[in-house]
Amino acid sequence: MNGSINDSAAQQQRDEKFMRMAINEARQALKREEVPIGAVVVAGDRVVGRGHNLVETLQDATAHAEMQALTAASSTLGGKYLRDCTLYVTVEPCVMCAGAIAWSQAARVVWGADDPKRGYTTVEGLRLHPQTVVVRGVLAAECEALMKEFFKELR
Amino acid sequence: MNGSINDSAAQQQRDEKFMRMAINEARQALKREEVPIGAVVVAGDRVVGRGHNLVETLQDATAHAEMQALTAASSTLGGKYLRDCTLYVTVEPCVMCAGAIAWSQAARVVWGADDPKRGYTTVEGLRLHPQTVVVRGVLAAECEALMKEFFKELR
Repeated sequence: MNGSINDSAAQQQRDEKFMRMAINEARQALKREEVPIGAVVVAGDRVVGRGHNLVETLQDATAHAEMQALTAASSTLGGKYLRDCTLYVTVEPCVMCAGAIAWSQAARVVWGADDPKRGYTTVEGLRLHPQTVVVRGVLAAECEALMKEFFKELR
Repeated sequence: MNGSINDSAAQQQRDEKFMRMAINEARQALKREEVPIGAVVVAGDRVVGRGHNLVETLQDATAHAEMQALTAASSTLGGKYLRDCTLYVTVEPCVMCAGAIAWSQAARVVWGADDPKRGYTTVEGLRLHPQTVVVRGVLAAECEALMKEFFKELR
């Protein structure tokens, strides 16, 4: 379900503000020559977790931006459920991260660029927690530009 | 795909040996009043990673046995891919862990008890890496007995 249709202008502005923070995280990843994906978790107006992709740095296939941000948020808040939180991530989560988001029961997930290859929505039947509202396409062009920059340099 | 049909008696014995180690990990979880699930990662005949469910202890919804074991194995081996490794886990992996296993490109995944509620095979269209052989039902009764013991005590 896409919640963006009913989002107010204030909500949209807020989403863009936090997505810019996620983009800053993605830039940190790019500096480390990692696939540039960043994430922040927000409770109210407070950033309670952040992270960027560290798969190459840590040589750990599970070290995605979302995983870092969710774990950081749970640590900050002292609880495994993130029911009042919004996760912002620059690129559509993969299956692993979608599973983690589902366990966290996050209230909202907001992403920038779709991932038509590895995004969880490519798997038919895969859903987040029923309470979780999904908003896609926030600052998508900026999020995608970072990814294109990275993959262009690889060639 | 279930690879168990062609498994030799030696392979089966080997699988049971390592599943017993995963069961020991699950017992560690039970002692901490965690859902008793344990995992080990094996390369050749060497255990390179192990872990048990720590969701309550760490208050982190991502702290599943498989995640701990995969991250430990990558750390031991110094690489993000676990292409020569087998992951043993007492209960069928969830969506998150299936996603992590897919990224790791593990050669084999062996589990004990099925999880008809949260197991990744309940999601239509969700697959591990095409190279990964899946074996299910190894020491299933023992793995399930631990789960039943835990949930009986909760009631």
